[in-house]
Amino acid sequence: MTNVPTTMAATFTGLETFDLRFPTSADAHGSDAMNTDPDYSAAYVILRTDAGDGLEGHGFAFTIGRGNEIQTAAIRALTPLVLGLRVGEVCADMGAFARRLHGDSQLRWLGPEKGVVQMAVAAVLNAAWDLAAKRAGKPLWALLASFSPEEIVALVDFRYIADTLSPREALALLSRNADGRAARTAHLRERGFPAYTTSPGWLGYSDEQLAAACRQAVADGWDGVKIKVGKSVADDARRCSIAREALGPTCKLMVDANQSWSLNEAIEAIRALSPFDLWWVEEPTHPDDPIAHARIAQAIAPVRVASGEHIPNAVMFKQFLESRAIGIAQVDACRSGGVNDVIATLLLAAKLDVPVCPHAGGVGLCELVQHLAIFDYVAVGASLENRAIEFVDHLHEHFVDPARVRGGRYLVPQTPGFSSTMHPASIARFSFPNGAQWRRGKTA
Amino acid sequence: MTNVPTTMAATFTGLETFDLRFPTSADAHGSDAMNTDPDYSAAYVILRTDAGDGLEGHGFAFTIGRGNEIQTAAIRALTPLVLGLRVGEVCADMGAFARRLHGDSQLRWLGPEKGVVQMAVAAVLNAAWDLAAKRAGKPLWALLASFSPEEIVALVDFRYIADTLSPREALALLSRNADGRAARTAHLRERGFPAYTTSPGWLGYSDEQLAAACRQAVADGWDGVKIKVGKSVADDARRCSIAREALGPTCKLMVDANQSWSLNEAIEAIRALSPFDLWWVEEPTHPDDPIAHARIAQAIAPVRVASGEHIPNAVMFKQFLESRAIGIAQVDACRSGGVNDVIATLLLAAKLDVPVCPHAGGVGLCELVQHLAIFDYVAVGASLENRAIEFVDHLHEHFVDPARVRGGRYLVPQTPGFSSTMHPASIARFSFPNGAQWRRGKTA
Repeated sequence: MTNVPTTMAATFTGLETFDLRFPTSADAHGSDAMNTDPDYSAAYVILRTDAGDGLEGHGFAFTIGRGNEIQTAAIRALTPLVLGLRVGEVCADMGAFARRLHGDSQLRWLGPEKGVVQMAVAAVLNAAWDLAAKRAGKPLWALLASFSPEEIVALVDFRYIADTLSPREALALLSRNADGRAARTAHLRERGFPAYTTSPGWLGYSDEQLAAACRQAVADGWDGVKIKVGKSVADDARRCSIAREALGPTCKLMVDANQSWSLNEAIEAIRALSPFDLWWVEEPTHPDDPIAHARIAQAIAPVRVASGEHIPNAVMFKQFLESRAIGIAQVDACRSGGVNDVIATLLLAAKLDVPVCPHAGGVGLCELVQHLAIFDYVAVGASLENRAIEFVDHLHEHFVDPARVRGGRYLVPQTPGFSSTMHPASIARFSFPNGAQWRRGKTA
Repeated sequence: MTNVPTTMAATFTGLETFDLRFPTSADAHGSDAMNTDPDYSAAYVILRTDAGDGLEGHGFAFTIGRGNEIQTAAIRALTPLVLGLRVGEVCADMGAFARRLHGDSQLRWLGPEKGVVQMAVAAVLNAAWDLAAKRAGKPLWALLASFSPEEIVALVDFRYIADTLSPREALALLSRNADGRAARTAHLRERGFPAYTTSPGWLGYSDEQLAAACRQAVADGWDGVKIKVGKSVADDARRCSIAREALGPTCKLMVDANQSWSLNEAIEAIRALSPFDLWWVEEPTHPDDPIAHARIAQAIAPVRVASGEHIPNAVMFKQFLESRAIGIAQVDACRSGGVNDVIATLLLAAKLDVPVCPHAGGVGLCELVQHLAIFDYVAVGASLENRAIEFVDHLHEHFVDPARVRGGRYLVPQTPGFSSTMHPASIARFSFPNGAQWRRGKTA
């Protein structure tokens, strides 16, 4: 038996990457003011071990097409930081593993903690979380929700956020909410998690498509719909009018400008849309501009400003939260540094009393963020008020444990892991440029 | 003759990349609190044309070793945006070319405007500027300084900075300073540009090395020296004491913490160093935290806070400048979006009256930033007060037109281009992993 690795002594033996691309630009799914022709893509990673238990860790970075090969190369560059580590030790101290991935001084230079390298760290870290949850036999949200407040605090790097939230404050916050975890979990299992849909409102859709999709959303039980804006004030107003008419007066309507406005354009455009009773305005301007967001937020209150899908880390979220630049924090499972960095942001948002409504859509983002939102409600933020997870009805069929929505709410995932595992057939077919989908001559 | 391309009709025919790495970690050159073992590297690009004039555009991104292959892949991904374009049209409207490189919606997702993709855009854009200056027969600073205020304004994308600086304000600022350009140019040709040196103060150097190097710097005519700090308050104080003693009371002393402190650690550490009369404190904490920088700046005045080598774009510089978070703007020719983005920052800094002291060192950064600082003085900021370009005495021998320093001042470059061209022999020898330097068995 001495040469057969036991589960205790198992090590990471493989980090395999895949450049997966889906030809979504063909039908204007996902089109918005800045991203006119996205081919939703995943720089996908599988972590393998010699545990002999058949378990793998799956993770990915989400991109929109060209450049997915750069993202895949960045994930591969993390290989030496992973191979050979003891699986049990990594899963038992994911805070240390996160610091290890972020801490390579030469790779850090390429960010730091932003862009391609940050998303690569997130992909690998999330893959390790998937494996940890599979080994624990729990969906990720339940694994996280099984941790003590001290264990959760140990996952977070407080170095650059302690001036706003110290480890002691985080511990107090988590401890305060520890008693209610069981009741909140039971509530979600029974009722599901509030959600909204972005499927009706892509900028490439015709007015008729928009109206029909909005009516269908209400019929399907959605009480929140988000549409894309930013082409022109007149066009935005017409589309909001069509959407509001189709949705009726009670369904929430959000708009997403995808960074297309300058500060003054944003204020002007949002004021012009005020007759349509907006719940929030998303990404009004450049995501590196918390000062402009704060000015917009002041000017358009009570309409909220939302942002997050391009905010690369908790340090940057701290700027937006502390300066009241956003009223909705849209954490993203792949853009910032993965589960640990998102937990830092959940804690900051809870302290500063800003609701978290995760960004989703793309490839597999719905699958991932449901775990983070559920964990937030069960253990951190402890409220469903003004909370909703984005849902887009694309590409779920490629996942082994797809996100499930009923009556406009996410059902609580039950399968062990992070819901991040794709079917092997999908991985083979959509591999770029040699998978069957691309060999047929479709263009990227 | 009809099949022979003329210079007017010439197009870009090649974009060739090279992964160049220098084994600088062997002797602790470049070591600091965050970057303990850098192997200075360049993701290098050569733009070729069919003009038949023998001119090429050379540019690069600077990295510190591992991951340089990711950076090189990102530069290659820009190839379709360049090949086939008319060289004359590109050089005649570099504002449009910059918007084209930044504007690919799928590649933009990987930043946006930050990290690996932003540095790739800078490398290609700077290579095109090198070519434009060579075609004009001028060093880059002189080409830029030959532009009218209107032409300079046309280089800048004001979309996300207009709330702080409108095109009209920029035009007024440039027009106000247009008359003095000739006199300021003559002054620099005669006196050189003020500078300081970072060569004496790497964290990996012994106390004896530090003292000897500081004494040598004064003997060489430097009136400003920067040393690395951030290991511990006691260690920092000892090193500052050694440096101040070796430098004497009049030589400026700056310290660089390379992001190693939290907000409170920074304030405490800098106060402990106040006996040593610091001119500025560089990168006290995380570069995504303008709010923390602003608090540090308030707490440590009159010592200035400096930052920039990790600030990825003019939008982010706007945060730091507007909130008085930095008293010195350290633009970097490769980190942000290249010449055009730096000009945006020069204009913002001039409006908000913050001196620009470019970040240099590494591979070739001294060669590049001298052009930007000279252009700033001649046409934008129009002052030398509190201005100094960083100088580090490493790796200049690999450049065809190396930066030249005499008596602690940069001499004005005379050779056409951006001083970015490396010797072919250096490119061959340091190519990773197959160049002669690496085949000998040195490790990366």
